[in-house]
Amino acid sequence: MSAEKSKNILERLGNGEVIIGDGSYVNTLEKRGYVLAGCYTPEASVENPHAVEELAIEYARAGADITQTFTFYSRDVGTPKDVKLTCLEINKASCEIAKKVSNKWGTIVAGGIIQTAAFKQTRDKNDVQAELREGLEVLIQNDIDLIIVEYFRNIVEMEWAIELALSYGKPVAATMCIGPKGDASGVSPAECAVRMAKAGAPIIGINCLFDPFIALETISKMKAGLDGAGLSPYLMCQPLGYRTPDGGSYGWIYLPEFPHAMEPRQVTRYECARFAREAYNLGVRIIGGCCGIESYHIRAMAEELAPERNCLPTASRKSDLDLSTLKEKEDKGRPEFKGKGCKDYWMNLVPCTGRPLSAPMFRQADPETVNPSVLN
Amino acid sequence: MSAEKSKNILERLGNGEVIIGDGSYVNTLEKRGYVLAGCYTPEASVENPHAVEELAIEYARAGADITQTFTFYSRDVGTPKDVKLTCLEINKASCEIAKKVSNKWGTIVAGGIIQTAAFKQTRDKNDVQAELREGLEVLIQNDIDLIIVEYFRNIVEMEWAIELALSYGKPVAATMCIGPKGDASGVSPAECAVRMAKAGAPIIGINCLFDPFIALETISKMKAGLDGAGLSPYLMCQPLGYRTPDGGSYGWIYLPEFPHAMEPRQVTRYECARFAREAYNLGVRIIGGCCGIESYHIRAMAEELAPERNCLPTASRKSDLDLSTLKEKEDKGRPEFKGKGCKDYWMNLVPCTGRPLSAPMFRQADPETVNPSVLN
Amino acid sequence: MSAEKSKNILERLGNGEVIIGDGSYVNTLEKRGYVLAGCYTPEASVENPHAVEELAIEYARAGADITQTFTFYSRDVGTPKDVKLTCLEINKASCEIAKKVSNKWGTIVAGGIIQTAAFKQTRDKNDVQAELREGLEVLIQNDIDLIIVEYFRNIVEMEWAIELALSYGKPVAATMCIGPKGDASGVSPAECAVRMAKAGAPIIGINCLFDPFIALETISKMKAGLDGAGLSPYLMCQPLGYRTPDGGSYGWIYLPEFPHAMEPRQVTRYECARFAREAYNLGVRIIGGCCGIESYHIRAMAEELAPERNCLPTASRKSDLDLSTLKEKEDKGRPEFKGKGCKDYWMNLVPCTGRPLSAPMFRQADPETVNPSVLN
Amino acid sequence: MSAEKSKNILERLGNGEVIIGDGSYVNTLEKRGYVLAGCYTPEASVENPHAVEELAIEYARAGADITQTFTFYSRDVGTPKDVKLTCLEINKASCEIAKKVSNKWGTIVAGGIIQTAAFKQTRDKNDVQAELREGLEVLIQNDIDLIIVEYFRNIVEMEWAIELALSYGKPVAATMCIGPKGDASGVSPAECAVRMAKAGAPIIGINCLFDPFIALETISKMKAGLDGAGLSPYLMCQPLGYRTPDGGSYGWIYLPEFPHAMEPRQVTRYECARFAREAYNLGVRIIGGCCGIESYHIRAMAEELAPERNCLPTASRKSDLDLSTLKEKEDKGRPEFKGKGCKDYWMNLVPCTGRPLSAPMFRQADPETVNPSVLN
Repeated sequence: MSAEKSKNILERLGNGEVIIGDGSYVNTLEKRGYVLAGCYTPEASVENPHAVEELAIEYARAGADITQTFTFYSRDVGTPKDVKLTCLEINKASCEIAKKVSNKWGTIVAGGIIQTAAFKQTRDKNDVQAELREGLEVLIQNDIDLIIVEYFRNIVEMEWAIELALSYGKPVAATMCIGPKGDASGVSPAECAVRMAKAGAPIIGINCLFDPFIALETISKMKAGLDGAGLSPYLMCQPLGYRTPDGGSYGWIYLPEFPHAMEPRQVTRYECARFAREAYNLGVRIIGGCCGIESYHIRAMAEELAPERNCLPTASRKSDLDLSTLKEKEDKGRPEFKGKGCKDYWMNLVPCTGRPLSAPMFRQADPETVNPSVLN
Repeated sequence: MSAEKSKNILERLGNGEVIIGDGSYVNTLEKRGYVLAGCYTPEASVENPHAVEELAIEYARAGADITQTFTFYSRDVGTPKDVKLTCLEINKASCEIAKKVSNKWGTIVAGGIIQTAAFKQTRDKNDVQAELREGLEVLIQNDIDLIIVEYFRNIVEMEWAIELALSYGKPVAATMCIGPKGDASGVSPAECAVRMAKAGAPIIGINCLFDPFIALETISKMKAGLDGAGLSPYLMCQPLGYRTPDGGSYGWIYLPEFPHAMEPRQVTRYECARFAREAYNLGVRIIGGCCGIESYHIRAMAEELAPERNCLPTASRKSDLDLSTLKEKEDKGRPEFKGKGCKDYWMNLVPCTGRPLSAPMFRQADPETVNPSVLN
Repeated sequence: MSAEKSKNILERLGNGEVIIGDGSYVNTLEKRGYVLAGCYTPEASVENPHAVEELAIEYARAGADITQTFTFYSRDVGTPKDVKLTCLEINKASCEIAKKVSNKWGTIVAGGIIQTAAFKQTRDKNDVQAELREGLEVLIQNDIDLIIVEYFRNIVEMEWAIELALSYGKPVAATMCIGPKGDASGVSPAECAVRMAKAGAPIIGINCLFDPFIALETISKMKAGLDGAGLSPYLMCQPLGYRTPDGGSYGWIYLPEFPHAMEPRQVTRYECARFAREAYNLGVRIIGGCCGIESYHIRAMAEELAPERNCLPTASRKSDLDLSTLKEKEDKGRPEFKGKGCKDYWMNLVPCTGRPLSAPMFRQADPETVNPSVLN
Repeated sequence: MSAEKSKNILERLGNGEVIIGDGSYVNTLEKRGYVLAGCYTPEASVENPHAVEELAIEYARAGADITQTFTFYSRDVGTPKDVKLTCLEINKASCEIAKKVSNKWGTIVAGGIIQTAAFKQTRDKNDVQAELREGLEVLIQNDIDLIIVEYFRNIVEMEWAIELALSYGKPVAATMCIGPKGDASGVSPAECAVRMAKAGAPIIGINCLFDPFIALETISKMKAGLDGAGLSPYLMCQPLGYRTPDGGSYGWIYLPEFPHAMEPRQVTRYECARFAREAYNLGVRIIGGCCGIESYHIRAMAEELAPERNCLPTASRKSDLDLSTLKEKEDKGRPEFKGKGCKDYWMNLVPCTGRPLSAPMFRQADPETVNPSVLN
């Protein structure tokens, strides 16, 4: 447990710490029966707070330094028809859960705002900032430790959001949901990164939509842009927990399996370990996950970076970290465990679906949006 | 909620009810950070009872009529080295959690016993029954509603276990972990079924090790044997939640991905719906899951059989059961949702791994044990 | 070369010889530009005799003991619209080519008759035999050495064909184009085999439609039937050169790739070696191929059975039979040849398509006809 | 037939003609039993001239405007041990075969020289040109129509070869066997192209090693370089007939299937049609193939470009060019032909291997050399 650590993320990053983020809420709670698929709203914070809290605890035990509030994300997203709660009621409950977990586990409470309905409708800066302000105020009233300006697909809107977020005097992290091809208008990752940094965000990066390795490709382009401009904000990466090489410019959204048959694409703990190592090597210092990243994935990231972080997660007590339980069986000559007591085995394994008719990737409706080398 | 329903499973089956079982504990709690991989013991019932209770609640909300106690399963399984709890302490805590959930949700509390260390060592009936008795007594002291004699690979040991279990005057369900090729000595599923029924088990079937569709193949052979012998016990099926066509006689245990990279093999909710329907059509009346079957899978089974059961799970409030949230987006002309608002789309989808190098199945170390038509 | 060997196949089989058949004509000559796809008629024997002769020579050099005449196969197959040749003219030219090759290479000249238009239309024995007689007479006039009654899907028609063929006093081989599920009316392979043998055919077996390993499954069922009936005709197997596990009851015909994209399914020379060995072990003594089996496949079969045949094909002079050319490169430390100088490497290799989006098998339009264990 | 056309390729290109090259000799003749695998030398021109001539005729009938001599390619390649023929004897016979076919079919006779042993050993220009001169002289004595300087992996050696080739006063085409990453020293395709053009080659491009679509990626980079330098030589592309996305910097050579199990990677006729169209659109005007491209592939290219070429190949008489034979069956309601009477069906089909355990691509021994987006 890291109960005595500072809750100021910039202070900790400044001390050279590698910060682990948390993982998926909405996606995981949908599978647990508390969030409506298709709608994906956080009324569970009021309806079933124990379930939300349990998940937040899981992430904290898995090594997450951050507890993100399970708050409403946009003005144009309604709750399911049978839910009569107001957005404010829900977000307040969400903040309380996050604070409670933070009090016990010492995590940094982070609250997010995302792309607006206003931007799509008016592209007017005042409208956009007004909508974002609504979302931010409940977070500020609950005195969160970190504002995450996330899931933006337009660098212009992102710049307005950063400007607003910085005005509250809290640490701000800014992450876009873009791939290697850039933002919705085709602005390159390199330029997006430079503009986010110039807008003043001390932490920049990407989140959601794309798989961990595509996300790193994007981060790598961002870093090249920042290096070229002589800028060095902290880098953050919270990718999807599903493999999406055939996903096009919207990542998983356009996949045939989205949203109800993503299982075979879910990453393994060893893919997450590889991601964490590669992210670290690229210079990323806030490493976490988005939809599809569950607590054992976060634990795998925290364990991979244990040498750099000088600590193991609480949940590592229940992790076969050195593979000794498998090694023991292998050493007894049990053929089904042959080779499995070694990390390399798992790092190199390419897992199967067990579905005789499955192809590894889908042919895309919109080949324009896909890496042509994959489609040839 | 089914709070007023009888907790006597035989009474309910006698009334023509289709019973839904619950899903995976050990496997799911390992991913949540509460169970040690490789060891797989239930000390979480003492260490983190909230997590065990949360999972039991999830299953009840998903439509499970049964809450299985998360109890120790065998004399020769030690706890992790750093755990000082006794088996009795753990099992008692597990029973209490199950009872608590049952009191609130009206579920049938089931406790299981499994294959013994004694059988492997001595093959002596007295030894075997002595070991099983240890496991059973804590269950009886806690007044469970149903004994499940499960995960046996030898019909002889199973017969001894049934004999013992019946002596307590509780309803007994007997399930073996065998595939279409039969038990560890090559006794066919048909003969196993007949012998279990003749041993007096009113409910017989299979659990674990094999995927839902292979499990149904085994059940189908069992049923043929029973029909031939003029016997008609209730049938029960609680398969693995992972696809294992290439798994050999031990199912998933021999797969290269076992246990740390099974994700791409995990079944989807629609594969579970198909399983539930086919199981029902085969005459199976207790339908649930084992490792890899999570609460949304159980919900999918309960929803598929809602017409036969005359009820929907609590968690269906958060289920896009009629796919209307997707249909709505499809109707707005959003290309990424094309066709997705229709159950057939999901029932027919063969999902991809998103890993360009993955084959659908692995070549087996031991081809003897695999269906040759798959390997040719 | 086997110039001095007897041209009486029964005599040679009686001496314990393993006979190698030849491979594909119509399919291979289509690729070489001499046969019209879709029509698949043999006018090339008149139009481009050099091309037909070249192919026959290839098979003889590859070890084939048989040269099959490239003759017309059925009354209801017309020539392409621009071809004015009569069936008699074509078949006569085809016989002459086969005789010429036989004179030089010592091969047995075989002529085939196949399922009739008459059977589909009238199911009248006289009509059927009248149509078959037309086809047979040009073969008899050219004094062929062996009649092959092949590509029948109905055991009744086959029995009539055998009766007629035997009346000419020539050796007769009878092969059906059926899979493990039996003939068009569902008569099992075992019963078909027994009835063919009882009809008097000294050589029986199967040809075309199914891949080598499915063909062996069918042969194995035939053999079980024959053994049960105390019959022991010689067995013959001339399968397709394409892998068809997902092909249904008509084999390759129902595959999405038929006929213009079969390349990725084509067997390798090592798959043919495995086929020849397994066929031999099953007791098959006339081993060859049908569509998709080319001369290097025939050579691989003949080489695999060289110890049993006491001879190597002429074309083995140009075969890297002992893999020494690869071994030499491997021994020089060239990484691209690592392991390749060893037969086991090739026997165990599962080759890739090199098409990132390809699944190994197709989902079938008609799942009824496919092995369900493949489709699950 | 194009008997009256000029045999001067530059004249014809100058008139706007699209030239079709021929396909594979060594690879195809190995399968036909006339070339020793591993050695790959052309002694068949003396030993079995009919087989070499037959193949050359196939290409001419398929629409090839060029007949390449099946000549020896390098000083350091010995013949198989049992061959006592001299290099000169073989090459002379090869030229005679090509001339004979050219006389009948009106094709341009092309002779090739390739990378030298001298370059590897000494990197001395005089040595290299001396070795190349040996190869060229027999071609010049036989008065060929076109010198192809091909299969070079170093731009320096290529420049020397072009200089020498131009000295004979014949048209010269220069093609390198490089992929998108450039030559053996890392010189980019763009720079290679510019240097070949500046060395005076009127026709430049690539051949062998990589599949058609990777080849076009390379050509596209070459063209960008040429455009940038204001140069516009004619472009030529003769790729491999096997799919190699996972092939690394040496293309197919490093694939596990090379050379004896390439079948599943072989391109279909429709993949060739697509290649020809895309090549034409890129500005390529000499379009043919290398290893794995057979006569029906060349025919498909010529047919695809029939509108641009104002002619159909001779062998199109036997081609189901408009798919009418399939369409007819489809129109009769035969389910196995559903959709197949339409070119789009075939252009969009992703064919299967029919091997349940096959992955689409292989994991590479040397991931450095592979497109990382494919390997992730």
